[in-house]
Amino acid sequence: MEPPFETIAIIGPGLVGGSLGMAVRRRSLARRVIGIGRRQSSLDAALRVGAADEVTLDVAAGVREAGLVVIATPISAIGPVAAEAARSMKQGAVLSDVASVKQGVVETVTAALRERPDVTFISTHPMAGSEQRGVEHARESLFEGSVCIFTPVEGTPHGELTRLRAFWEAMGASVRTLDAATHDRVVARISHLPHLAAAALILLVAKDEAALAGGGLADTTRIASGDPALWRDICESNAAQICRALDDFAGEVQHMRTLLAEGRFAELEELLRNAKDKRDTFHSR
Amino acid sequence: MEPPFETIAIIGPGLVGGSLGMAVRRRSLARRVIGIGRRQSSLDAALRVGAADEVTLDVAAGVREAGLVVIATPISAIGPVAAEAARSMKQGAVLSDVASVKQGVVETVTAALRERPDVTFISTHPMAGSEQRGVEHARESLFEGSVCIFTPVEGTPHGELTRLRAFWEAMGASVRTLDAATHDRVVARISHLPHLAAAALILLVAKDEAALAGGGLADTTRIASGDPALWRDICESNAAQICRALDDFAGEVQHMRTLLAEGRFAELEELLRNAKDKRDTFHSR
Repeated sequence: MEPPFETIAIIGPGLVGGSLGMAVRRRSLARRVIGIGRRQSSLDAALRVGAADEVTLDVAAGVREAGLVVIATPISAIGPVAAEAARSMKQGAVLSDVASVKQGVVETVTAALRERPDVTFISTHPMAGSEQRGVEHARESLFEGSVCIFTPVEGTPHGELTRLRAFWEAMGASVRTLDAATHDRVVARISHLPHLAAAALILLVAKDEAALAGGGLADTTRIASGDPALWRDICESNAAQICRALDDFAGEVQHMRTLLAEGRFAELEELLRNAKDKRDTFHSR
Repeated sequence: MEPPFETIAIIGPGLVGGSLGMAVRRRSLARRVIGIGRRQSSLDAALRVGAADEVTLDVAAGVREAGLVVIATPISAIGPVAAEAARSMKQGAVLSDVASVKQGVVETVTAALRERPDVTFISTHPMAGSEQRGVEHARESLFEGSVCIFTPVEGTPHGELTRLRAFWEAMGASVRTLDAATHDRVVARISHLPHLAAAALILLVAKDEAALAGGGLADTTRIASGDPALWRDICESNAAQICRALDDFAGEVQHMRTLLAEGRFAELEELLRNAKDKRDTFHSR
């Protein structure tokens, strides 16, 4: 079978970009994976773990022959990187990204592609990752069983969408489509708010107190080990939606406090039962 | 080597009590473990999984020959159960419990033992468990590597404390000593608040949204699957301390919201870095 793309370029082969490169190579979804980065040491690591066939520090050279270019840099770098890639991408190629926030990214990259109407941009968000960072933590199975959210815009060619969907499905992901605004509202609640809540929880605990804790605190706060610079980027890109999520969350917490302070324990039990039922329905572990 | 206790009675052999019975039997920390419960079906299950050598529905008969009686019932049942056990325990025996909240329990059980000054009460809280419930989820390794908090009162005999400490250490736990009030304040932050925060997070998420989430949401909300009746008991027993913890938490969340709304992202990054440093120091996974 022909691979869906002859050459794929991944700009920023870190945890997610590197896992993508490994998955593509393991599954023969391209003949060649080119890793593009800003530091030679990271690129050497990408080669070492098998995340790319070739690497380069030169964006223009790296993207030139690629049928698919995936930007996997931190969000704040996407605009300039997209502009640089756009100048050198080949006729008819597909540009994509894997950022955690979509509305600003879609606007920025669409603007960067204004003079390249022949390049198709399809923004995606693979809902996989971990609190770790760097290509040394990349793994080719990262996307297996995960969801990859596509946020196409009006006019995205159907053929390219279908091809990119098949590409992600070949890596074991289920593809879901949302508009960018809905995406950002939803991930504020299912990803960004939990991160901030975990950070707030751990900030309240002193070291000698944490030493007493069981596994519950470790589970609940695991994501707070995520990279602060990366999360700052995410928060900055989705501030309005995260504020709304924080408000809803604060309201829920305040409601619990009222039930506790007023001795309304039957209502509290009912609330905890609803939470348990939801958690048990959502997740099997 | 002589076992530390000839006969141990466990009242309420569920997840924690059953795991205790299994650990005691596997490590030969008693010649006989008697499981005492209110439902024959639970007692049959306790026998089946190896959590007890014998079982009985009769508290008086079950505790009569025990050198150590451990109450592992829900918190709200501890008072009546302790009173019943106190009437039949043998001269010089030790009474203990494994409740998650200590101040009220210590007062209640101390009152129940007013006419049995020969019985020593030592309240303990093994910081181990899971979101699961029931003896079918018990396991003999539950306490390995965990912390068991002792909350002795003034006048607790040193010899009995030392013996019970050795008993818990033999099950792989590290023993720490706190006064009951400090214990309740600390667990409000390291255990009870995380539970309520997890419940609040999952309550904000719709089912079709949860289906999109990565592993972070699953980790962060795992403890929300805990038994609602058991957690109602805990909340009721430690309401004042949990309210204080919720207030501190709400303050931290509000502070984050302010940083986001005012665009103070460098400060937010600093805060997230503090949280990451703490989490990385506290836990290795």
